[in-house]
Amino acid sequence: MKALVYNGPGQRSWQEVPDPVIQDPEDAIVRVDAVTICGTDLHILKGDVPTVQPGRILGHEAVGTITAVGSGVRGVAIGDRVLISCISSCGRCEYCRQGHYGQCLGGGGWILGHLIDGTQAEQVRVPFADRSVYKLPDNVTDEAAVLLADILPTSYEVGVLNGKVAPGDTVVIVGAGPIGLAAIATSKLFSPTRIVVVDAADSRRKAALLRGADLALDPDEDVEATVRELTGGLGADVAIEAVGIPATFELCTRVVRPGGRVANVGVHGAAVTLHLEDLWIKNVTITTGLVDTWTTPRLLAMVAAGRLELSELITHRFGLHEMQDAYDVFSRPAVTGALKVALFSQAGVE
Amino acid sequence: MKALVYNGPGQRSWQEVPDPVIQDPEDAIVRVDAVTICGTDLHILKGDVPTVQPGRILGHEAVGTITAVGSGVRGVAIGDRVLISCISSCGRCEYCRQGHYGQCLGGGGWILGHLIDGTQAEQVRVPFADRSVYKLPDNVTDEAAVLLADILPTSYEVGVLNGKVAPGDTVVIVGAGPIGLAAIATSKLFSPTRIVVVDAADSRRKAALLRGADLALDPDEDVEATVRELTGGLGADVAIEAVGIPATFELCTRVVRPGGRVANVGVHGAAVTLHLEDLWIKNVTITTGLVDTWTTPRLLAMVAAGRLELSELITHRFGLHEMQDAYDVFSRPAVTGALKVALFSQAGVE
Repeated sequence: MKALVYNGPGQRSWQEVPDPVIQDPEDAIVRVDAVTICGTDLHILKGDVPTVQPGRILGHEAVGTITAVGSGVRGVAIGDRVLISCISSCGRCEYCRQGHYGQCLGGGGWILGHLIDGTQAEQVRVPFADRSVYKLPDNVTDEAAVLLADILPTSYEVGVLNGKVAPGDTVVIVGAGPIGLAAIATSKLFSPTRIVVVDAADSRRKAALLRGADLALDPDEDVEATVRELTGGLGADVAIEAVGIPATFELCTRVVRPGGRVANVGVHGAAVTLHLEDLWIKNVTITTGLVDTWTTPRLLAMVAAGRLELSELITHRFGLHEMQDAYDVFSRPAVTGALKVALFSQAGVE
Repeated sequence: MKALVYNGPGQRSWQEVPDPVIQDPEDAIVRVDAVTICGTDLHILKGDVPTVQPGRILGHEAVGTITAVGSGVRGVAIGDRVLISCISSCGRCEYCRQGHYGQCLGGGGWILGHLIDGTQAEQVRVPFADRSVYKLPDNVTDEAAVLLADILPTSYEVGVLNGKVAPGDTVVIVGAGPIGLAAIATSKLFSPTRIVVVDAADSRRKAALLRGADLALDPDEDVEATVRELTGGLGADVAIEAVGIPATFELCTRVVRPGGRVANVGVHGAAVTLHLEDLWIKNVTITTGLVDTWTTPRLLAMVAAGRLELSELITHRFGLHEMQDAYDVFSRPAVTGALKVALFSQAGVE
């Protein structure tokens, strides 16, 4: 089969690789019908995630059809149309028992396109299939479902829930890529008074306003002063970091009010400066996190019920074999206006 | 009267100053019967807290007797023996309405010995007296009560409660000064499986073991490896920072397990490096905080009921006029073995 292979920082190839096979009784093999590229894949290609070894097939978000299952798989069967979650779960370890699947100690967690081969391929082996794929209702399209593999639960759990967004809050979201835009949608579930988005790209600020942000600022503007002015001099109740560089994290720690929360979602490749000489006295809570995906079934049900609107988050569609073109488009959003790109096995738009 | 005056970094004097007077209907004037020196006062003298201006009388922990009250004071009266809390509360602002008195916007918060003259004096003016002093039961000595002014609620709220210490936890407390030792006592209220204390001073490690720590390590030992070994390779559930320098904060972020909590209690004068390139994926929660003292009445009741043991936290006792000697002893704990020092107006030991 063909797959997108990481060959070390800055290097990727779309190449022939062996078909995956069942290696464990709890495995499933899934034919990939729709797959996306994640900002995390770009971080990997930057070299920010050194646990990804050269030779690895990337990708941790997909929708597909099960073509084989091991003898221990009971919840899904050949022919089922499923969402492949970015997080797998052994279901047995201390973390999985507590619902913290992202920190699985039993061989799960974020493994696809990280520690084992991923979904940017014609087929993928998914370990712990009963706890790592989700059967899809007919009324949820591949295009909607694929956003549930990572960005929707990540923005919700690691951004909105860790940040404890609450009614009346002022929420600042730094970064209006797919995660930041999904954080707008999932923040709105808690009725904040206002959502302020910060992004350097004009196209992304426009996208944020279209999707429900109340205000979109360029980081070159005086974001702190603007937020203070909106909040009686105090600052944001919640700041969500959805980029993954020191400047954006540090901006979050400056715009947050005393007693506020900074929820880091971004994948970071470098240390940041934490100004504890200012923050020690401010009762600030900072959270980091890999998604656990414990909310995925609920979010899927909300999408199926039409209670969570994701339309237009996917701006570019490709055939699966146009993977390299899709990467080129996704990695230059300021030029291409790309938000989320999706690739479909049926040659082009679904 | 006499008072300890901050004259800029490294400079203090015990000198004659004007007696305090009622300035506001909600003020009380309190004759100081017992007072302590806080690690925060040493941070101020290091120049770590630039909001303290030269000329300020230091001190924010005391027990005393009310000698005058303004017309708006209803909860206490002349002659009452009271605890003076490190935190005052206007009772009216958004933060006070939520119990976040430390962040008071109405002129309270941590003001004594910070923004207004403090308790290291023969008398002190206490604003918002109804919400800033606590009448003491007869069976709570001055010596026990003075520890309730700051270190007990601070270690409890900012360390133990922010860190969400829970039954079965492995708690690492970095720094075995008064705050760290009080954090041992208040952590034990939640039945952790083990408390590991880290301090460079042999005398403080011994003090920690005497007061209930299960293990006391020198920071030069491999603290991370020891904690990992104790926890099945994972790390601490909670790390409490009770020093206030970059090295101790960064140690906390290294010993904490995935999904764990770092509760910063220390007063910091410099920025720290936060290794988000490691932590982004680890679901770590970091909290900072100034105490709100919402737990003070409860802690006072526990001390009165004999349910919270603070004995021997005060190692050195002085007459009030021996203030400079007390500072000399408290600021060199490695030499003097000082934990908490207390000064009494009745010339020496109570």
